[in-house]
Amino acid sequence: MPTTRKIGVFVYENFEPIDVWGFVQAFAIARFFGQAYGDKGPYPFNISFIAKTIDPVHSYNGPRVAPDMTREEALTEQFDVLVIPGGHGTQDVLDDATIAWVRAMDAKVPLMASVCTGAAVLASAGLLDGRPAATNHNAFSWVASLRPAVVWDRISRWVDTGKYVTSAGVSSGTDMAFYLVARLCGQAVADIAAAEAEYHWQRDPRVQQPF
Amino acid sequence: MPTTRKIGVFVYENFEPIDVWGFVQAFAIARFFGQAYGDKGPYPFNISFIAKTIDPVHSYNGPRVAPDMTREEALTEQFDVLVIPGGHGTQDVLDDATIAWVRAMDAKVPLMASVCTGAAVLASAGLLDGRPAATNHNAFSWVASLRPAVVWDRISRWVDTGKYVTSAGVSSGTDMAFYLVARLCGQAVADIAAAEAEYHWQRDPRVQQPF
Repeated sequence: MPTTRKIGVFVYENFEPIDVWGFVQAFAIARFFGQAYGDKGPYPFNISFIAKTIDPVHSYNGPRVAPDMTREEALTEQFDVLVIPGGHGTQDVLDDATIAWVRAMDAKVPLMASVCTGAAVLASAGLLDGRPAATNHNAFSWVASLRPAVVWDRISRWVDTGKYVTSAGVSSGTDMAFYLVARLCGQAVADIAAAEAEYHWQRDPRVQQPF
Repeated sequence: MPTTRKIGVFVYENFEPIDVWGFVQAFAIARFFGQAYGDKGPYPFNISFIAKTIDPVHSYNGPRVAPDMTREEALTEQFDVLVIPGGHGTQDVLDDATIAWVRAMDAKVPLMASVCTGAAVLASAGLLDGRPAATNHNAFSWVASLRPAVVWDRISRWVDTGKYVTSAGVSSGTDMAFYLVARLCGQAVADIAAAEAEYHWQRDPRVQQPF
Protein backbone atom coordinates (compact mmCIF):
# COMPACT_ATOMS: atom_id res chain seq x y z
CA MET A 1 0.00 0.00 0.00
CA PRO A 2 1.62 3.30 -1.04
CA THR A 3 2.15 6.18 1.37
CA THR A 4 0.33 9.42 0.63
CA ARG A 5 2.92 12.03 -0.33
CA LYS A 6 2.45 15.70 0.54
CA ILE A 7 2.73 18.21 -2.29
CA GLY A 8 3.03 21.91 -1.43
CA VAL A 9 2.28 24.61 -3.99
CA PHE A 10 3.39 28.19 -3.19
CA VAL A 11 0.72 30.62 -4.46
CA TYR A 12 1.18 34.36 -4.65
CA GLU A 13 -0.60 37.36 -6.18
CA ASN A 14 -0.63 37.28 -10.00
CA PHE A 15 0.50 33.68 -10.44
CA GLU A 16 -0.15 32.27 -13.91
CA PRO A 17 -3.21 29.97 -13.73
CA ILE A 18 -1.88 26.84 -15.40
CA ASP A 19 1.54 27.10 -13.72
CA VAL A 20 -0.35 26.13 -10.59
CA TRP A 21 -3.28 24.06 -11.81
CA GLY A 22 -1.61 22.03 -14.56
CA PHE A 23 0.78 20.84 -11.87
CA VAL A 24 -2.10 20.21 -9.46
CA GLN A 25 -4.09 18.33 -12.11
CA ALA A 26 -1.36 15.78 -12.81
CA PHE A 27 -1.03 14.91 -9.12
CA ALA A 28 -4.77 15.11 -8.38
CA ILE A 29 -5.70 12.73 -11.18
CA ALA A 30 -2.99 10.25 -10.16
CA ARG A 31 -5.71 8.98 -7.83
CA PHE A 32 -6.04 6.20 -10.38
CA PHE A 33 -2.87 4.76 -8.87
CA GLY A 34 -4.85 1.89 -7.41
CA GLN A 35 -6.23 0.84 -10.76
CA ALA A 36 -2.71 0.46 -12.17
CA TYR A 37 -1.80 -2.00 -9.45
CA GLY A 38 -5.10 -3.75 -8.99
CA ASP A 39 -6.12 -2.15 -5.72
CA LYS A 40 -8.01 0.89 -4.50
CA GLY A 41 -5.27 2.10 -2.15
CA PRO A 42 -5.19 5.61 -0.69
CA TYR A 43 -4.72 8.59 -2.94
CA PRO A 44 -0.99 8.86 -3.60
CA PHE A 45 -0.87 12.66 -3.20
CA ASN A 46 -2.27 15.29 -0.89
CA ILE A 47 -1.96 18.79 -2.37
CA SER A 48 -1.89 22.03 -0.35
CA PHE A 49 -1.69 25.70 -1.27
CA ILE A 50 0.82 27.69 0.79
CA ALA A 51 0.70 31.51 0.81
CA LYS A 52 1.90 34.54 2.75
CA THR A 53 -1.51 34.74 4.47
CA ILE A 54 -4.62 32.57 4.17
CA ASP A 55 -6.55 35.29 2.31
CA PRO A 56 -7.63 34.41 -1.26
CA VAL A 57 -4.89 34.91 -3.87
CA HIS A 58 -5.54 36.23 -7.40
CA SER A 59 -4.26 34.56 -10.52
CA TYR A 60 -3.06 36.99 -13.18
CA ASN A 61 -6.05 38.38 -15.07
CA GLY A 62 -8.11 35.54 -13.58
CA PRO A 63 -10.00 34.34 -10.51
CA ARG A 64 -8.74 33.51 -7.03
CA VAL A 65 -7.61 30.45 -5.07
CA ALA A 66 -7.98 29.79 -1.33
CA PRO A 67 -4.70 28.94 0.49
CA ASP A 68 -4.61 26.08 3.00
CA MET A 69 -1.82 27.41 5.21
CA THR A 70 0.71 30.20 5.68
CA ARG A 71 4.41 29.91 4.87
CA GLU A 72 5.20 29.71 8.60
CA GLU A 73 2.74 26.84 9.04
CA ALA A 74 4.29 25.05 6.06
CA LEU A 75 7.65 25.05 7.84
CA THR A 76 6.13 22.85 10.56
CA GLU A 77 4.90 20.25 8.05
CA GLN A 78 6.89 17.63 6.15
CA PHE A 79 6.35 18.05 2.42
CA ASP A 80 7.69 15.59 -0.13
CA VAL A 81 7.55 18.09 -2.98
CA LEU A 82 7.42 21.89 -3.07
CA VAL A 83 6.62 23.65 -6.33
CA ILE A 84 7.08 27.34 -7.10
CA PRO A 85 4.88 28.48 -9.99
CA GLY A 86 5.59 31.48 -12.19
CA GLY A 87 3.66 34.37 -13.60
CA HIS A 88 3.53 38.13 -13.77
CA GLY A 89 3.80 38.31 -9.98
CA THR A 90 7.14 36.48 -9.73
CA GLN A 91 9.02 39.77 -9.65
CA ASP A 92 7.24 40.56 -6.36
CA VAL A 93 8.31 37.34 -4.59
CA LEU A 94 12.05 37.82 -4.93
CA ASP A 95 12.13 39.71 -1.60
CA ASP A 96 14.37 38.67 1.30
CA ALA A 97 11.56 37.11 3.37
CA THR A 98 10.40 34.86 0.52
CA ILE A 99 13.94 33.82 -0.39
CA ALA A 100 14.70 33.00 3.26
CA TRP A 101 11.51 30.90 3.44
CA VAL A 102 12.42 29.02 0.25
CA ARG A 103 15.86 28.24 1.70
CA ALA A 104 14.29 27.02 4.95
CA MET A 105 11.90 24.78 3.01
CA ASP A 106 14.77 23.53 0.85
CA ALA A 107 16.49 22.27 4.01
CA LYS A 108 13.49 19.99 4.69
CA VAL A 109 11.92 19.12 1.32
CA PRO A 110 13.57 16.38 -0.79
CA LEU A 111 12.19 17.48 -4.17
CA MET A 112 11.94 21.14 -5.23
CA ALA A 113 10.27 22.05 -8.51
CA SER A 114 9.46 25.22 -10.40
CA VAL A 115 7.27 26.13 -13.35
CA CYS A 116 7.94 29.02 -15.72
CA THR A 117 9.43 32.10 -14.02
CA GLY A 118 9.19 30.24 -10.69
CA ALA A 119 12.78 29.24 -11.50
CA ALA A 120 13.72 32.84 -10.72
CA VAL A 121 12.79 32.20 -7.08
CA LEU A 122 14.81 28.97 -6.77
CA ALA A 123 17.71 30.63 -8.59
CA SER A 124 17.62 33.75 -6.39
CA ALA A 125 17.82 31.45 -3.37
CA GLY A 126 21.07 30.11 -4.85
CA LEU A 127 19.69 26.59 -5.18
CA LEU A 128 20.37 26.23 -8.90
CA ASP A 129 23.95 27.51 -9.06
CA GLY A 130 26.06 25.34 -11.36
CA ARG A 131 23.03 23.27 -12.41
CA PRO A 132 21.05 23.29 -15.66
CA ALA A 133 17.58 24.79 -15.32
CA ALA A 134 14.64 25.75 -17.55
CA THR A 135 12.36 28.78 -17.40
CA ASN A 136 9.76 30.64 -19.46
CA HIS A 137 11.01 31.32 -22.98
CA ASN A 138 9.42 34.75 -23.24
CA ALA A 139 11.01 35.86 -19.93
CA PHE A 140 14.24 33.96 -20.51
CA SER A 141 16.62 36.94 -20.63
CA TRP A 142 15.20 38.51 -17.48
CA VAL A 143 15.35 35.30 -15.43
CA ALA A 144 18.82 34.38 -16.70
CA SER A 145 20.14 37.85 -15.82
CA LEU A 146 19.08 37.41 -12.20
CA ARG A 147 21.53 34.54 -11.61
CA PRO A 148 24.21 33.94 -14.24
CA ALA A 149 25.72 31.12 -12.12
CA VAL A 150 22.84 28.88 -13.25
CA VAL A 151 23.33 26.91 -16.47
CA TRP A 152 20.16 28.18 -18.14
CA ASP A 153 18.72 25.79 -20.73
CA ARG A 154 16.86 27.56 -23.52
CA ILE A 155 15.81 24.35 -25.29
CA SER A 156 14.31 21.79 -22.92
CA ARG A 157 10.69 21.72 -21.84
CA TRP A 158 11.89 20.65 -18.38
CA VAL A 159 15.19 19.74 -16.69
CA ASP A 160 15.63 17.14 -13.91
CA THR A 161 18.83 17.48 -11.88
CA GLY A 162 17.73 15.14 -9.10
CA LYS A 163 16.55 17.31 -6.23
CA TYR A 164 15.69 20.29 -8.46
CA VAL A 165 13.32 19.96 -11.41
CA THR A 166 12.49 23.09 -13.41
CA SER A 167 10.15 23.56 -16.34
CA ALA A 168 9.91 26.12 -19.12
CA GLY A 169 6.83 28.31 -19.49
CA VAL A 170 3.26 27.78 -18.35
CA SER A 171 1.95 24.56 -19.96
CA SER A 172 5.32 22.84 -19.95
CA GLY A 173 4.84 22.62 -16.18
CA THR A 174 1.95 20.22 -16.79
CA ASP A 175 4.19 17.94 -18.84
CA MET A 176 6.84 18.12 -16.09
CA ALA A 177 4.22 17.30 -13.45
CA PHE A 178 3.14 14.10 -15.23
CA TYR A 179 6.86 13.26 -15.52
CA LEU A 180 7.21 13.72 -11.73
CA VAL A 181 4.19 11.47 -11.17
CA ALA A 182 6.04 8.86 -13.26
CA ARG A 183 9.23 9.40 -11.28
CA LEU A 184 7.43 9.05 -7.95
CA CYS A 185 4.78 6.41 -8.77
CA GLY A 186 5.97 4.70 -11.94
CA GLN A 187 5.25 5.15 -15.61
CA ALA A 188 2.03 3.10 -15.54
CA VAL A 189 0.41 5.45 -13.03
CA ALA A 190 1.42 8.54 -15.01
CA ASP A 191 0.21 7.02 -18.27
CA ILE A 192 -3.18 6.20 -16.74
CA ALA A 193 -3.39 9.67 -15.19
CA ALA A 194 -2.63 11.42 -18.49
CA ALA A 195 -5.11 9.24 -20.39
CA GLU A 196 -7.76 9.85 -17.75
CA ALA A 197 -7.11 13.58 -18.16
CA GLU A 198 -7.51 13.12 -21.95
CA TYR A 199 -4.19 14.97 -22.04
CA HIS A 200 -1.74 14.94 -24.93
CA TRP A 201 1.28 14.57 -22.68
CA GLN A 202 4.59 15.68 -24.21
CA ARG A 203 6.68 12.90 -22.66
CA ASP A 204 9.95 14.06 -24.20
CA PRO A 205 11.39 17.13 -22.43
CA ARG A 206 13.25 18.08 -25.60
CA VAL A 207 10.13 18.07 -27.80
CA GLN A 208 9.93 21.01 -30.16
CA GLN A 209 8.39 24.11 -28.61
CA PRO A 210 4.91 24.98 -29.93
CA PHE A 211 6.05 28.28 -31.48
CA MET B 1 -10.72 49.04 -29.31
CA PRO B 2 -12.28 45.73 -28.27
CA THR B 3 -14.89 45.45 -25.54
CA THR B 4 -14.00 43.40 -22.47
CA ARG B 5 -16.19 40.30 -22.48
CA LYS B 6 -17.41 38.70 -19.27
CA ILE B 7 -16.72 35.00 -18.78
CA GLY B 8 -18.52 33.16 -15.98
CA VAL B 9 -17.27 29.81 -14.67
CA PHE B 10 -19.61 27.78 -12.45
CA VAL B 11 -17.57 26.09 -9.71
CA TYR B 12 -18.91 23.41 -7.38
CA GLU B 13 -17.53 20.92 -4.86
CA ASN B 14 -15.28 18.28 -6.43
CA PHE B 15 -14.85 19.94 -9.81
CA GLU B 16 -11.92 18.57 -11.84
CA PRO B 17 -9.02 21.06 -11.63
CA ILE B 18 -8.17 21.50 -15.31
CA ASP B 19 -11.80 21.52 -16.41
CA VAL B 20 -11.88 24.92 -14.74
CA TRP B 21 -8.35 26.23 -15.00
CA GLY B 22 -7.43 25.09 -18.50
CA PHE B 23 -10.46 27.06 -19.65
CA VAL B 24 -9.49 30.02 -17.47
CA GLN B 25 -5.88 29.94 -18.72
CA ALA B 26 -6.82 30.27 -22.39
CA PHE B 27 -8.95 33.35 -21.71
CA ALA B 28 -6.59 34.84 -19.12
CA ILE B 29 -3.57 34.65 -21.40
CA ALA B 30 -5.49 36.17 -24.30
CA ARG B 31 -4.39 39.43 -22.66
CA PHE B 32 -1.85 39.49 -25.49
CA PHE B 33 -4.77 40.55 -27.71
CA GLY B 34 -3.29 44.02 -28.04
CA GLN B 35 0.01 42.72 -29.34
CA ALA B 36 -1.71 40.92 -32.19
CA TYR B 37 -3.27 44.14 -33.39
CA GLY B 38 -0.50 46.56 -32.54
CA ASP B 39 -2.05 48.16 -29.50
CA LYS B 40 -2.21 47.63 -25.76
CA GLY B 41 -6.00 47.74 -25.57
CA PRO B 42 -7.96 46.51 -22.54
CA TYR B 43 -7.87 42.85 -21.60
CA PRO B 44 -10.39 41.13 -23.82
CA PHE B 45 -11.83 38.96 -21.02
CA ASN B 46 -12.87 39.32 -17.40
CA ILE B 47 -13.27 35.94 -15.70
CA SER B 48 -15.43 35.28 -12.61
CA PHE B 49 -16.12 32.21 -10.51
CA ILE B 50 -19.80 31.67 -9.72
CA ALA B 51 -20.84 29.26 -6.93
CA LYS B 52 -23.77 28.35 -4.70
CA THR B 53 -22.22 30.43 -1.89
CA ILE B 54 -19.05 32.52 -1.75
CA ASP B 55 -17.29 30.02 0.54
CA PRO B 56 -14.15 28.36 -0.90
CA VAL B 57 -14.88 25.39 -3.18
CA HIS B 58 -12.74 22.21 -3.29
CA SER B 59 -11.41 20.72 -6.47
CA TYR B 60 -11.50 16.91 -6.51
CA ASN B 61 -8.55 15.56 -4.56
CA GLY B 62 -7.00 19.03 -4.77
CA PRO B 63 -6.98 22.55 -3.30
CA ARG B 64 -9.71 25.17 -3.21
CA VAL B 65 -10.81 28.18 -5.23
CA ALA B 66 -12.49 31.38 -4.01
CA PRO B 67 -15.79 32.26 -5.76
CA ASP B 68 -16.48 35.84 -6.83
CA MET B 69 -20.27 35.75 -6.61
CA THR B 70 -23.27 33.56 -5.90
CA ARG B 71 -25.55 32.10 -8.56
CA GLU B 72 -28.24 34.64 -7.64
CA GLU B 73 -25.78 37.51 -8.09
CA ALA B 74 -24.71 36.10 -11.46
CA LEU B 75 -28.31 36.40 -12.67
CA THR B 76 -28.09 40.17 -12.26
CA GLU B 77 -24.93 40.42 -14.42
CA GLN B 78 -24.59 40.18 -18.18
CA PHE B 79 -22.16 37.40 -19.08
CA ASP B 80 -20.99 36.78 -22.63
CA VAL B 81 -19.95 33.18 -21.93
CA LEU B 82 -20.92 30.71 -19.19
CA VAL B 83 -18.94 27.51 -18.81
CA ILE B 84 -19.93 24.47 -16.77
CA PRO B 85 -16.90 22.32 -15.86
CA GLY B 86 -17.07 18.62 -15.01
CA GLY B 87 -15.62 16.33 -12.43
CA HIS B 88 -16.54 13.83 -9.75
CA GLY B 89 -18.97 16.37 -8.26
CA THR B 90 -21.13 16.72 -11.38
CA GLN B 91 -23.58 14.12 -10.10
CA ASP B 92 -24.34 16.47 -7.18
CA VAL B 93 -25.25 19.48 -9.37
CA LEU B 94 -28.04 17.85 -11.32
CA ASP B 95 -30.57 18.98 -8.68
CA ASP B 96 -33.65 21.05 -9.53
CA ALA B 97 -32.23 24.33 -8.18
CA THR B 98 -29.05 24.08 -10.26
CA ILE B 99 -30.92 23.09 -13.40
CA ALA B 100 -33.37 25.98 -12.94
CA TRP B 101 -30.42 28.37 -12.53
CA VAL B 102 -28.73 27.06 -15.68
CA ARG B 103 -31.98 27.58 -17.63
CA ALA B 104 -32.29 31.13 -16.27
CA MET B 105 -28.69 31.88 -17.26
CA ASP B 106 -29.27 30.33 -20.69
CA ALA B 107 -32.03 32.87 -21.29
CA LYS B 108 -29.47 35.69 -20.91
CA VAL B 109 -26.09 34.32 -21.98
CA PRO B 110 -25.32 34.09 -25.73
CA LEU B 111 -22.63 31.37 -25.52
CA MET B 112 -22.91 28.36 -23.21
CA ALA B 113 -20.01 25.93 -22.93
CA SER B 114 -19.22 22.77 -20.97
CA VAL B 115 -16.11 20.74 -20.26
CA CYS B 116 -16.11 17.02 -19.55
CA THR B 117 -19.13 15.82 -17.54
CA GLY B 118 -20.30 19.45 -17.38
CA ALA B 119 -22.29 18.47 -20.48
CA ALA B 120 -24.52 16.44 -18.15
CA VAL B 121 -25.72 19.71 -16.61
CA LEU B 122 -26.48 21.40 -19.93
CA ALA B 123 -28.14 18.19 -21.16
CA SER B 124 -30.24 17.80 -18.02
CA ALA B 125 -31.47 21.37 -18.53
CA GLY B 126 -32.71 20.23 -21.96
CA LEU B 127 -30.44 22.65 -23.78
CA LEU B 128 -28.70 20.04 -25.95
CA ASP B 129 -31.73 18.07 -27.16
CA GLY B 130 -31.37 17.19 -30.84
CA ARG B 131 -27.87 18.67 -31.00
CA PRO B 132 -24.48 16.93 -31.16
CA ALA B 133 -22.45 17.20 -27.95
CA ALA B 134 -19.21 15.86 -26.47
CA THR B 135 -18.45 14.68 -22.94
CA ASN B 136 -15.82 12.78 -20.95
CA HIS B 137 -14.95 9.49 -22.61
CA ASN B 138 -14.59 7.57 -19.36
CA ALA B 139 -18.02 8.75 -18.16
CA PHE B 140 -19.61 8.63 -21.61
CA SER B 141 -22.23 5.94 -20.92
CA TRP B 142 -23.40 7.59 -17.71
CA VAL B 143 -23.77 11.06 -19.25
CA ALA B 144 -25.41 9.74 -22.41
CA SER B 145 -27.94 7.74 -20.37
CA LEU B 146 -29.09 10.92 -18.60
CA ARG B 147 -30.46 12.46 -21.80
CA PRO B 148 -30.81 10.20 -24.83
CA ALA B 149 -32.37 13.06 -26.85
CA VAL B 150 -28.87 14.54 -27.24
CA VAL B 151 -26.82 13.35 -30.23
CA TRP B 152 -23.79 12.29 -28.17
CA ASP B 153 -20.52 12.39 -30.08
CA ARG B 154 -18.00 9.84 -28.87
CA ILE B 155 -15.23 10.93 -31.26
CA SER B 156 -14.71 14.68 -31.24
CA ARG B 157 -12.54 16.55 -28.77
CA TRP B 158 -15.15 19.34 -28.85
CA VAL B 159 -18.36 20.17 -30.70
CA ASP B 160 -19.54 23.68 -31.69
CA THR B 161 -23.26 23.97 -32.46
CA GLY B 162 -23.32 27.76 -32.38
CA LYS B 163 -24.73 28.76 -28.99
CA TYR B 164 -23.66 25.51 -27.29
CA VAL B 165 -20.06 24.31 -27.34
CA THR B 166 -19.18 21.13 -25.45
CA SER B 167 -15.84 19.42 -24.95
CA ALA B 168 -14.79 15.87 -24.11
CA GLY B 169 -12.87 15.11 -20.91
CA VAL B 170 -10.66 17.31 -18.79
CA SER B 171 -7.78 18.60 -20.96
CA SER B 172 -9.87 18.73 -24.13
CA GLY B 173 -11.61 21.69 -22.48
CA THR B 174 -8.35 23.63 -22.76
CA ASP B 175 -8.22 22.99 -26.50
CA MET B 176 -11.87 24.05 -26.80
CA ALA B 177 -11.15 27.21 -24.79
CA PHE B 178 -8.38 28.32 -27.16
CA TYR B 179 -10.80 27.56 -30.01
CA LEU B 180 -13.37 29.86 -28.37
CA VAL B 181 -10.75 32.58 -28.00
CA ALA B 182 -10.19 32.24 -31.76
CA ARG B 183 -13.93 32.36 -32.42
CA LEU B 184 -14.38 35.49 -30.29
CA CYS B 185 -11.12 37.37 -30.97
CA GLY B 186 -9.69 35.87 -34.14
CA GLN B 187 -7.15 33.16 -34.89
CA ALA B 188 -4.14 35.46 -34.45
CA VAL B 189 -5.04 36.22 -30.84
CA ALA B 190 -5.57 32.55 -30.02
CA ASP B 191 -2.32 31.54 -31.71
CA ILE B 192 -0.39 34.14 -29.74
CA ALA B 193 -2.12 33.09 -26.52
CA ALA B 194 -1.31 29.40 -27.05
CA ALA B 195 2.32 30.18 -27.93
CA GLU B 196 2.64 32.43 -24.91
CA ALA B 197 1.29 29.57 -22.79
CA GLU B 198 3.91 27.27 -24.41
CA TYR B 199 0.89 25.06 -25.05
CA HIS B 200 0.69 22.31 -27.66
CA TRP B 201 -2.80 23.27 -28.76
CA GLN B 202 -4.76 20.51 -30.50
CA ARG B 203 -6.44 22.77 -33.05
CA ASP B 204 -8.39 19.96 -34.73
CA PRO B 205 -11.41 18.85 -32.67
CA ARG B 206 -11.30 15.45 -34.35
CA VAL B 207 -7.65 14.80 -33.45
CA GLN B 208 -7.02 11.28 -32.20
CA GLN B 209 -7.61 10.85 -28.48
CA PRO B 210 -4.44 10.37 -26.39
CA PHE B 211 -5.39 6.82 -25.30
